[in-house]
This record gives sequence, structure tokens and C-alpha cells, in this order.
Amino acid sequence: MSAGKVYGLGLGPGAADLMSVRADRILRAATHVAYFRKAGHAGQARQIVEGLIPAGAREHPMDYPVTTEIPFDDPRYNQALSAFYAECTARLAALAEGGADIVVLCEGDPFFYGSFMHLYTRLAGRVPVEVVPGITGMSAAWTATGAPITWGDDILTVLPGTLPEQALTDGIRAADAIVVMKMGRHLPRLRRALAAAGRAGDAFLVEYAAMPGQRVTRLADYPDDTAPYFSIALVHGQGRRP
Amino acid sequence: MSAGKVYGLGLGPGAADLMSVRADRILRAATHVAYFRKAGHAGQARQIVEGLIPAGAREHPMDYPVTTEIPFDDPRYNQALSAFYAECTARLAALAEGGADIVVLCEGDPFFYGSFMHLYTRLAGRVPVEVVPGITGMSAAWTATGAPITWGDDILTVLPGTLPEQALTDGIRAADAIVVMKMGRHLPRLRRALAAAGRAGDAFLVEYAAMPGQRVTRLADYPDDTAPYFSIALVHGQGRRP
Repeated sequence: MSAGKVYGLGLGPGAADLMSVRADRILRAATHVAYFRKAGHAGQARQIVEGLIPAGAREHPMDYPVTTEIPFDDPRYNQALSAFYAECTARLAALAEGGADIVVLCEGDPFFYGSFMHLYTRLAGRVPVEVVPGITGMSAAWTATGAPITWGDDILTVLPGTLPEQALTDGIRAADAIVVMKMGRHLPRLRRALAAAGRAGDAFLVEYAAMPGQRVTRLADYPDDTAPYFSIALVHGQGRRP
Repeated sequence: MSAGKVYGLGLGPGAADLMSVRADRILRAATHVAYFRKAGHAGQARQIVEGLIPAGAREHPMDYPVTTEIPFDDPRYNQALSAFYAECTARLAALAEGGADIVVLCEGDPFFYGSFMHLYTRLAGRVPVEVVPGITGMSAAWTATGAPITWGDDILTVLPGTLPEQALTDGIRAADAIVVMKMGRHLPRLRRALAAAGRAGDAFLVEYAAMPGQRVTRLADYPDDTAPYFSIALVHGQGRRP
């Protein structure tokens, strides 16, 4: 018997019909479907494919042991996650070694700030793995604003909102177009960094891009200090255009 | 009679089944299909959808008046392109005002360094326009390398290869993960910038990502001074991972 394959399936930003034709085809033929989720929650990736998983397919939720309970720079955070990824890897590898194909649901694009990467590096070389790219959340976010993100020779920089304030400021200063991911409760720091770099007036906040509840607000008009997890801030490039 | 709609349809990086389910559905119902191409060439966007345009749909090729014949910093370049985009806009707007829906084929994601943006800004407010995001060429490129592009708090910077050498060097120095688009004949400059920033050994060149002829080479081992138009150079981030 030959080993099955693990698919890292990019689902795109959140609307089921923004997944690729290839991802849709693989999903509709799936017999095993795995996905990460916060314990006690439905899981965003799983929600995207609601109604699309074939009847009879086995589901394998993988519940994160921690999310924000331990700061990520605490060694216990890394230990807990490392053990968790090893356990998930063992589970998926055993299925694949038994001949099953497993589809791992990934929000956005699997190789762009995704959790699947932690399984990928552990599975690669052990069982066959295929990654299907997806539309990123940031593409859905700039599409939602109704304005192109990069023109001509614009430099685009993608900054995790978890960075220290000075790193954010430097990154914003050096770029023409800016995307800030994973802000959540770091919004006040981002506001200060944008102001220091002189771009506060140009920034937009996009909540739930491509999902029900999509909302685009000028960051200056956004009243709260915390943004939902599925929020992206961006500043459009203003480069060369004929 | 109500106005038709212009769709800016993101086709993704080059494989037909990497377009979204939504784009596929809109394309298969199209009655008018427009696309940019270099005069005398088939056009990359048009090639992606070969066999998918409904029989009877009218095709509207839009031939660039110039590509590399005039340097882009020559005022005549801007004048020629500006007149061309105005003419394309008039053509599509007239069709839409006559009640027709028109699908404009866009490689990658329409709002990410795409030509459609030049029509979008001219059409918006005049006729209804809807943009369907797509998988970017860079997503296909990093997927092709078999390694994630960004981990944890990595900063990703996207640099047009047409930038001056110092700007490339500065951009590379400031980022963890790097994508360089539109290199073509600017490859020697990119090599010097990567070397100056100490990242020459980490760079990959991906030709024709997600297309027939896809090839991944360490940039240090790439023998030529010119890369094909559909080439992307990248350096992977090495950020935090449990």
C-alpha cells in the first residue's frame, strides 16, 4: 500500500467561492478533513467550508492548547505549541502512512503566516505533502477598500501588528504601501507608529474582509482600541500611473 | 435599460484551476471578454483561460501601444499609455452603458501591480465595476519553492525589480522575507543589492510559477543576466517557530 498525501489547502480569505477551483475539487473528494481551531470554537477554516465537506468524510479538529493565555515570548508558549504540533503531525502522518489522503484546511494562503507551516515542516520528507495556494486575506482587504494597493514601482511592506512600535514606525516609513496583519489589541501602538511616520491619515481598517460583516473604516475614524482578529490595516501606494 | 457591469477578474498565477470558484463562474457566463496583450502576442491572461470562454462570447483584445520601446520615465511613455487607457475605458464604458456585462481578464490579483487598475480608476463612478481578487504570482512562487515565506513576526517586503540599486538594497536590509517582482533584465542589479545586504546566498529565482515550465533555482546558481518576464525572486523569512 502506498502512503496517502497531506494537502495544505488554501481556502482564501473567507468566502467559500473565493477558494480556487483546485481547492474546491480536492475538498469535494476528501475523506479526511483536518483543521486548527481554538478549543470550544467552530474554527474559522472549518466555517468557510460549511456544507462543502462530503458526507462520510472524517473530521479531525486540532485544538490549540494555548492562544493568548501565555505570552508568546514565554518559553512555555513555545513548549506547549511545539508539543501540540508534534502530536498533530503524528496523527496526520499515521493516517497518511495508512494510505489515507488528508486535507488540512488553511485560511488564506498556507505559506503566508499560516499555522499549517508548522505541520508542513514536520511532515515534509515523511509523507507526501502538496500545498495549494490561496487568495490572501490582505488581497480581500484591499479589494474591499475599492482602491489598488500598489502602482508602478511602489514598495509594499507587510508588518505583523505584534512588532515593537519602533519596528512598525521604521517599516511604515520605508514603504509606499503598507499592510498590517494581526493587530487585534495592538491597535493603539499601530496608531502611534503611523502618526510618527506621517501616514495616520492614509490608513484604513478592514474588518472581516470577504466575510459577512465586512467593514471598511478610515483608521482615524475607527473608535475602538481593539480590532477583531480578522482585521487588516492598510495604506495604499500612490505610485506612478499614466 | 440598466448599465452592465465591468468585472476585473483575478485569474491567479497562471494555472486555470487556481482561479477562484467565483471567477470561474463569472467567466463561464461571460458574453464580453476583454484583456490586455502585447501586440502580436496571444496575451498571458487570455492564455490562462483558453478553452473556458463560452462559445459566442465576444473578445476584446486591448493591445499595449508600447511596452519596452520607450523608457518608462520618458514623458512619451506616459502619454501613449494614458491615451491607450482612455481609449480602452471609452470602449468598455460604451459596452456597459449599452447594457452588456464585460469581464476583464487579469493575471494574479487585479489590485496588486495590475494593468486593470488603470481602467478601474477611470471606470469607477461611471459604470458599475466589481473586482474579484486572485491568488498572486508571488503566492505561487513561494509555494513552488516548497518553503513558507513568512513565520511569526517576519516582515515581508515586495520590491519592484525596476527600483534603483540603493532602494533595492535598503528594502532588502529592512525586511525578513523579500519578494522581487518584474526583474527581467534588472537581475544583475538585484544580485548586487542582495550581496550588499548580505542575503545573496538565501535568494531563489522562480520562473513561470504555477505554469508549465515552472522552475525554481537558487539565484546564486542561475546562470543568466536576464530572467523571463514571469519570474519572481524571493528570500524566505526565518522567524519564530515553535
